[in-house]
Amino acid sequence: MVVESVRALAFDVFGTVVDWRGSIIREGQELGKRKGLDVDWAAFADAWRGGYGPSMNRVRTGDLPWTKIDDLHRMVLDSLLPEFGIEGLTKEEVEAFNLVWHRLDGWPDAAEGLQRLRKRYTIATLSNGNVSLLADMAKHAGLHWDLILSAELSQHYKPDPEAYLSAAELLSLRPEQVMMVAAHEGDLRAASTVGFRTGYVHRPLEMGEGKGAVKPAADSFDVVADDFSGLADALGA
Amino acid sequence: MVVESVRALAFDVFGTVVDWRGSIIREGQELGKRKGLDVDWAAFADAWRGGYGPSMNRVRTGDLPWTKIDDLHRMVLDSLLPEFGIEGLTKEEVEAFNLVWHRLDGWPDAAEGLQRLRKRYTIATLSNGNVSLLADMAKHAGLHWDLILSAELSQHYKPDPEAYLSAAELLSLRPEQVMMVAAHEGDLRAASTVGFRTGYVHRPLEMGEGKGAVKPAADSFDVVADDFSGLADALGA
Repeated sequence: MVVESVRALAFDVFGTVVDWRGSIIREGQELGKRKGLDVDWAAFADAWRGGYGPSMNRVRTGDLPWTKIDDLHRMVLDSLLPEFGIEGLTKEEVEAFNLVWHRLDGWPDAAEGLQRLRKRYTIATLSNGNVSLLADMAKHAGLHWDLILSAELSQHYKPDPEAYLSAAELLSLRPEQVMMVAAHEGDLRAASTVGFRTGYVHRPLEMGEGKGAVKPAADSFDVVADDFSGLADALGA
Repeated sequence: MVVESVRALAFDVFGTVVDWRGSIIREGQELGKRKGLDVDWAAFADAWRGGYGPSMNRVRTGDLPWTKIDDLHRMVLDSLLPEFGIEGLTKEEVEAFNLVWHRLDGWPDAAEGLQRLRKRYTIATLSNGNVSLLADMAKHAGLHWDLILSAELSQHYKPDPEAYLSAAELLSLRPEQVMMVAAHEGDLRAASTVGFRTGYVHRPLEMGEGKGAVKPAADSFDVVADDFSGLADALGA
């Protein structure tokens, strides 16, 4: 076994487990059809996601008090609506659209891979998404987590070390007994710094066709896999 | 519908969802057989559970810093072992026995009733048990929670109001959108004080045959049910 000590897997969610971009484009297109809007929904999805890191950094640096991702998404959305010419939505429709992040679809291998991994390991989210977002998404996408962990519980967004360490504390495990699983090298490196094991899963379509990250070398992390099935193989699940 | 506003159900766990007493007696008997011990395991289970409230109150009053239930259980267990003449256990065996609380069995109607309720509501634990205990128990007893909420997340044991209010905040709901479900009137009254709806489920065997609580009148809480199936009926699930 690659990593004998591991008892629990903590998953990054946006991009690693679910296809945020494809899901937002699809819901955007449906909204556009209903409302007669002509919008480049791919550009819109990228812009919405693009506002995510900077708005979290405002919380991380203390410029904003603790703010849930739902509310950060809404701040970004409110600025994008006029920019993309999205007009004629009621307040309720804007609110419902903001919650598209609760309704993201899993990558095709996600639900089944998690079922395999869950037989051998405790599997948890460890996402910057808020708890209710992650719980709604689990139901929507058929993801059977053992538990929902979130930056909201420590009120520290990844990659702050507190986000990882508080997860290990809630799991009643030492950091080396937890493997962070993510499609993003920065998340894994931050987790590794506090002692977590690391599992990289390649998601070349996260940012759209032809815009994917380069897959790291096999020895860059404890596991480097092409999907959750490959991760389960590597972890003996 | 009894309570139109309700979106999520928060469940007390020990006694309400799982039969702590029967489970501890059974594991105690198995341990006694292996180790050649002659112990009144029903009295032992009652004494262990009896130490729970007072030890939590030491945390609630500030006499102890925040301490997980696993560690409170261990403090009580360490004092009960000599009292009940339980000898000859290795340190590892004591530790493993202490974690019997992670392996409690559900009441016969629990798993199926939760499956029904989960189709209509977000269902969460809201227990004084620590997060890892509740996650392990869910796996052991086949309980499919949408999310694990615990006093550990607010570091306030029920019936402190913070325990309930922080659960509503994590669910992104107003208190009146959450129903506390418990077999214990005190838990429900404390939840009601901060605005939760209340669902009483009668568990006459929790303390052993003939020692059950008296079932309250039907109008004492928003719902009074005999089991989770009755609760699902009352809630239209």
